[in-house]
Amino acid sequence: MDDAQRLQILAASAADLVTEGALVGLGTGSTAEALVRELGRRVQAGLSMTGVPTSIRTQHLAERVGIPVRSLDDVLASGERIDIGIDGADEIDPNLQVTKGRGGALLFEKLVGLACERYVIIAFDSKLVGQLGERMPLPIEVVTMGWAGTRDRLEVAGVPATVRMDPERPDHPFLTDSGNVILDSDTGPIAAPAALAATIKSITGVVDHGLFLNMVDLACVVDRDGNVTTKTGA
Amino acid sequence: MDDAQRLQILAASAADLVTEGALVGLGTGSTAEALVRELGRRVQAGLSMTGVPTSIRTQHLAERVGIPVRSLDDVLASGERIDIGIDGADEIDPNLQVTKGRGGALLFEKLVGLACERYVIIAFDSKLVGQLGERMPLPIEVVTMGWAGTRDRLEVAGVPATVRMDPERPDHPFLTDSGNVILDSDTGPIAAPAALAATIKSITGVVDHGLFLNMVDLACVVDRDGNVTTKTGA
Repeated sequence: MDDAQRLQILAASAADLVTEGALVGLGTGSTAEALVRELGRRVQAGLSMTGVPTSIRTQHLAERVGIPVRSLDDVLASGERIDIGIDGADEIDPNLQVTKGRGGALLFEKLVGLACERYVIIAFDSKLVGQLGERMPLPIEVVTMGWAGTRDRLEVAGVPATVRMDPERPDHPFLTDSGNVILDSDTGPIAAPAALAATIKSITGVVDHGLFLNMVDLACVVDRDGNVTTKTGA
Repeated sequence: MDDAQRLQILAASAADLVTEGALVGLGTGSTAEALVRELGRRVQAGLSMTGVPTSIRTQHLAERVGIPVRSLDDVLASGERIDIGIDGADEIDPNLQVTKGRGGALLFEKLVGLACERYVIIAFDSKLVGQLGERMPLPIEVVTMGWAGTRDRLEVAGVPATVRMDPERPDHPFLTDSGNVILDSDTGPIAAPAALAATIKSITGVVDHGLFLNMVDLACVVDRDGNVTTKTGA
């Protein structure tokens, strides 16, 4: 079974979690985008739902496939919460702690995720790891002004990191939707994720980081054969 | 002696700290702006110096009065440090811990301040307090997206705060130079500034706050009679 088929099975399985009338946090990245397309098909077929996008890119995709969208700020201003958020992840550990941010949208993903009643991660089983940090560098979103000073402060705190460059603009750092810079840290396996998260967040100039701890309620994971298994979090 | 005269005495006294060829962090707000104007006069009279502004407003003022400017990023990219930073403050405690941010530029002020070899606060003696938080609410700079969620998380953490509105655009939050929102917290006297700073910074959505701790090397304070006294920090 090829990746496109597995992705579609995963997306359909996650879309089944979206009930009539739901307010749905829409993630960013290739996996989440497969879900957005599937939800678009269901909206065309009569499902009533509203999306809360986690990036400009996802917002445009949602609008293109016919999903009505509202901003997080609009939702919060009316005192509502998002019913369910569904997003991809870079790594998932056995306790459903996850890392995110390879797609460059970690800050808005986390802010939307924290506003969700139920937060669901969807992923290929290749994202399962024993310890976070095993396979992927950890993204850290920092204020653009003085980013090199923030990088130096992180290094002093034991978290060396390098700035992510923009593939489309040589010699320019990649900028997030909020105009921030991403520093990637080759942490290796992270023995104490909460302590590392606290250290990173405490540094002046750091806005946020890719450790999403104690947030995930459910993970839907698809294996090589297209079987989806779900796992419930804390 | 009126405030304008006292301000000029203070500015001249601080300008005396700027040596030939210095790279100088230029603060934001009425007190810092008096210094920028004084430095402009000295540059016209032959002083060679370069300013590193902490806001767009200060950058424009520096350019207007003839001070050459460089950005913080340019300075950091060349591996330099700023020789001296001079800025105002909202409150100054007996240990030279200060609060800043009434002018809305706290993030860039702190990022520039951390890049300075020597960091100097200039203020009227009315800014001296026994404990920080006695007189002024504490400004907290937060990501605009989902700011109401961040405000709620701060409240849960024991730091209730209200969003600062833009005096020139009714019903719109005030936006900083980085496009963030400011939440003001009526903390009252702050018994443990470091603990409060750590709590606030740990919250998702918080970028920074107005507590400038263990940063100030020297405070220059002018009293009612125009006498400037200096006090050395940690």
